[in-house]
Amino acid sequence: MTDATKITNGSLIAAEKVEGTNVYNTKGEKLGTVEDIMIDKVSGRACYAVMSFGGFLGMGEKHHPLPWSTLKYDKSKEGYVVNLDKAVLEKAPTYDEDDFTWTPDYGRRVDQYYNVPTYWL
Amino acid sequence: MTDATKITNGSLIAAEKVEGTNVYNTKGEKLGTVEDIMIDKVSGRACYAVMSFGGFLGMGEKHHPLPWSTLKYDKSKEGYVVNLDKAVLEKAPTYDEDDFTWTPDYGRRVDQYYNVPTYWL
Repeated sequence: MTDATKITNGSLIAAEKVEGTNVYNTKGEKLGTVEDIMIDKVSGRACYAVMSFGGFLGMGEKHHPLPWSTLKYDKSKEGYVVNLDKAVLEKAPTYDEDDFTWTPDYGRRVDQYYNVPTYWL
Repeated sequence: MTDATKITNGSLIAAEKVEGTNVYNTKGEKLGTVEDIMIDKVSGRACYAVMSFGGFLGMGEKHHPLPWSTLKYDKSKEGYVVNLDKAVLEKAPTYDEDDFTWTPDYGRRVDQYYNVPTYWL
C-alpha cells in the first residue's frame, strides 16, 4: 500500500494535467474525467475533484464535485477509481455554471451526500 | 489567525484559476505569478507552486518551483506572500522545459534549498 503522506516517483502531477484524467468505477468502467480541482488556497489541500460525465457539445454538461477522499489513484489505470454506484452519482449535487461560487453550505451538502467528514467551518 | 485545517468561505479556488495569482514579497512588491501547482496525485496535497518571474515573450522564461509551505495566502492582497530574499530566489533551482519530469532527487533539492521538510521518499 502506498503511504499517502509520501511523494513517490511519478506521483507528482501538474494541476493543469489532472484535467482530463479518467475516473473509473470499481468494475473498471470509465465514468468520466476530472475537469478541475478545487483547492483550499490557505492549506493547499485538494478538497474536491470536479468531474464531468460528458454532455452533448458542452450543452447540458453538469459539473459533479466529488470530495477528494472518495477518489483513489490507481497507477495501473493511470486514473482515479471511485467506489460509487451510478445511481448515487446520478442523484448527487451538481452545478451548471462554470463560474459557480462555492458556499460553505454547498460544500457541507456535498460532503454529507458522500458521507465524508467536512472541513468547512 | 486562520485555521489552516478548515475551509473558510471564499478560500476554495479552482486549480485552473490559481494560475495567474500574484506572488509578493513581505515588502508588498510583486515578484511574479503562479503558473501551475504540482499536486501529489495520491494524497491530493499541493506540494509546489511553480512560479514564473516574467521573461521576454516567453523566451528565457524560467519555472521556479516553490515548496507550498513557503507561500502564505494573503486575502487582502488576493495573492501569495513569500518571505524570501530576491537573491535567494535568483539562485534557486529552476527548470526550462514545460514538460519537465520531476524526480525525487530534484524535489529533495528544492526542499533543501528552501530549508523545508521533504515529503519525498
